[in-house]
Amino acid sequence: MSADDDFTNAAGNEKQTARLEAFSDGVFGIAMTLLVLDLHVPNPPVGAGPYTSAGLGSALASQWPAYFAFVTSFASVLIMWMHHHAFFRLVRCVDATLLFVNGLLLLLVTVVPFPTAVVAKYFSTPAGPAACTLYAGMFVVISVVFYLVLLAALRPSIVFPTVSPRTLQRLRRTYSIGPPLYLLATIAAPFSRWLSMGICTALWLYWVVTARRRDIYLPPAG
Amino acid sequence: MSADDDFTNAAGNEKQTARLEAFSDGVFGIAMTLLVLDLHVPNPPVGAGPYTSAGLGSALASQWPAYFAFVTSFASVLIMWMHHHAFFRLVRCVDATLLFVNGLLLLLVTVVPFPTAVVAKYFSTPAGPAACTLYAGMFVVISVVFYLVLLAALRPSIVFPTVSPRTLQRLRRTYSIGPPLYLLATIAAPFSRWLSMGICTALWLYWVVTARRRDIYLPPAG
Amino acid sequence: MSADDDFTNAAGNEKQTARLEAFSDGVFGIAMTLLVLDLHVPNPPVGAGPYTSAGLGSALASQWPAYFAFVTSFASVLIMWMHHHAFFRLVRCVDATLLFVNGLLLLLVTVVPFPTAVVAKYFSTPAGPAACTLYAGMFVVISVVFYLVLLAALRPSIVFPTVSPRTLQRLRRTYSIGPPLYLLATIAAPFSRWLSMGICTALWLYWVVTARRRDIYLPPAG
Amino acid sequence: MSADDDFTNAAGNEKQTARLEAFSDGVFGIAMTLLVLDLHVPNPPVGAGPYTSAGLGSALASQWPAYFAFVTSFASVLIMWMHHHAFFRLVRCVDATLLFVNGLLLLLVTVVPFPTAVVAKYFSTPAGPAACTLYAGMFVVISVVFYLVLLAALRPSIVFPTVSPRTLQRLRRTYSIGPPLYLLATIAAPFSRWLSMGICTALWLYWVVTARRRDIYLPPAG
Repeated sequence: MSADDDFTNAAGNEKQTARLEAFSDGVFGIAMTLLVLDLHVPNPPVGAGPYTSAGLGSALASQWPAYFAFVTSFASVLIMWMHHHAFFRLVRCVDATLLFVNGLLLLLVTVVPFPTAVVAKYFSTPAGPAACTLYAGMFVVISVVFYLVLLAALRPSIVFPTVSPRTLQRLRRTYSIGPPLYLLATIAAPFSRWLSMGICTALWLYWVVTARRRDIYLPPAG
Repeated sequence: MSADDDFTNAAGNEKQTARLEAFSDGVFGIAMTLLVLDLHVPNPPVGAGPYTSAGLGSALASQWPAYFAFVTSFASVLIMWMHHHAFFRLVRCVDATLLFVNGLLLLLVTVVPFPTAVVAKYFSTPAGPAACTLYAGMFVVISVVFYLVLLAALRPSIVFPTVSPRTLQRLRRTYSIGPPLYLLATIAAPFSRWLSMGICTALWLYWVVTARRRDIYLPPAG
Repeated sequence: MSADDDFTNAAGNEKQTARLEAFSDGVFGIAMTLLVLDLHVPNPPVGAGPYTSAGLGSALASQWPAYFAFVTSFASVLIMWMHHHAFFRLVRCVDATLLFVNGLLLLLVTVVPFPTAVVAKYFSTPAGPAACTLYAGMFVVISVVFYLVLLAALRPSIVFPTVSPRTLQRLRRTYSIGPPLYLLATIAAPFSRWLSMGICTALWLYWVVTARRRDIYLPPAG
Repeated sequence: MSADDDFTNAAGNEKQTARLEAFSDGVFGIAMTLLVLDLHVPNPPVGAGPYTSAGLGSALASQWPAYFAFVTSFASVLIMWMHHHAFFRLVRCVDATLLFVNGLLLLLVTVVPFPTAVVAKYFSTPAGPAACTLYAGMFVVISVVFYLVLLAALRPSIVFPTVSPRTLQRLRRTYSIGPPLYLLATIAAPFSRWLSMGICTALWLYWVVTARRRDIYLPPAG
């Protein structure tokens, strides 16, 4: 009997992922909530008098890239959390590999408010292409790491033995469109900021629609 | 047997909403806590010397719209969390529809610090009406989405079978005053910022009082 | 059978405070963590060249009121959380009264970073007395509301029936020194900022020491 | 029967650390997430026109010390959380000593974004050595307190009786390299900022590698 057995006493065949899931949820939730800090209260231009109601209204309206970037980032992280939530239901235990790729994912999710702020500030300026390249490039990295978490989580030694190979295969396939399409958005950014952000938006909309239609990652309500 | 059954193995008739509730709680709590970032430490006017104690005191006092907006937003989100807490006790399982409308609600709750900051800064300026329109308008959208979450959560396929139709009906009725009254506050904002914010305040006070008097959403202490 | 019974089905005599405790913990934790945002990276004075290492070092050192305020606020909120944690172990269920006074406590805990920032910025300026009055005054209100939460939580209809009256009495007594001493710190602030902050510091140190010596709110390790 | 027994009723031999672990996780998670606030969106120099895409790109690239400090801090706190997670699996109950050293650790973890911001801003300026001294010095304190938490948590009266002395000894040894090496990094900072930050980086990489190779703190997947 090795000393490691001390750690397996309480375990057996029960689910052992509670603390990792709770911690991941916390980081996802906080990263999403911090996105609001990228929405700034506008100030009247120096030298101009105080805002009228119409002036404040149009200053708020002119910040639309910030709202757009907020919604895109929030929805992309939320849908990622939902998938995380979904496939972790199949996971029975945690090992160091899963813990580390998941930790890397959390690091990247935490960074999301930064490229979001860059896009919010520079989308409609001459520097827009660089901002969109950063944004989409960030999501290339995130989606690749997310896929690695998925692979690490769905290894046979990690999932519940009752999960069928077909389910695992289907789950892997659903997420595999992320990296190439975010890469396309990155490559498109220097040519068209609209196309780039449009691909990012289309991706989370696609995941919402497929999730609703096939209800793949949630138990049927019956 | 379809592959989806893998997801229902552990389920049966038990409550399956823990992770969604925890995640929602996290987002509600963080959004409420971030409101404090809208309270700014005052600085003496450029060119004036450092504050005296009296000067700091009156600078702090003159920020009262920020405190008022803070309390209104905090209380409104807290009472929403309490109702969320209350009706999720009846929910047995989660499907994609509930997950997505709840996700939309979280997005909107996350945004609350932004209109709060706008009201804090512009309430007592000429741009006050625009600030209050934004604020109340935001809560129209939030209260509508909150009502959709309620409808999605209280479907027969989602709640515990033991919940009576009368309970469901009563719950739906309690929240239904939110959207029309927030709409009234939005329409009133261009005419009177006080009336607009007063309606928003009256609403959360009303919900506190009814919740206390009827104790509707909590188990009796016996 | 009233419709309210739907809410008590799952309950019986079990502990029903999990979601309230988790939510409170979240708000306590976030409020404590946001305190770090009151620590600002110093900037060289306008017109001076970049900092040397010695310059940065002495600029960092001159911010000591900010570190002092950070530690005082963090420790005060942490000890409050620990007591919250302790007496909620005796609580069996939650009603609207407890939920609302607890909500008011969370609102006030959330505000703590604001007076902390005011003290951090103005402690060693002529406005120091006003800053300390605000700080200690805030803790008067918090400690009164904390005491109300304690009273609401330790009502006979709320605690587990096995808790003895002597335990309840002792718990109430431990916290009752908070409001009068914070009031003293508030009154002392216009005369001596050091005395005022000293009382605030002495209080949390006292609670740490009594908690350690009597171990009152934790189960014996045997 | 003393009044303290009221607190032990529900307990017996079960694990009683849930709320402490959840609270610690929350603080770790929030501190890690707040690190992103140290990444600032660059502004064009005063007087220069708006950024071109190339200008924004090079401004973003020139912020590399901020990214480096972000990754180092995030990884250091994450690996600390993982070890915290690991050895708390052996802990059966909580006493005041453990609660207070753990509270002190949380205070220090909360502070991490501050020295990180100092390094991010001053690493490549003449004040770099002072910034690195602060950063590494902070981690000396954190690693000492972490070691105290470990000692407090692994006392025989606190851990599960089934944990072997050999396991406890091995756990203590793994972390014991932290304080001396962070001290070395602090001493090295005035001579070489690169050496100082390099030691900090090497430490978390070392902990990742040993954790993966020996899988010491996680149950084997079988």
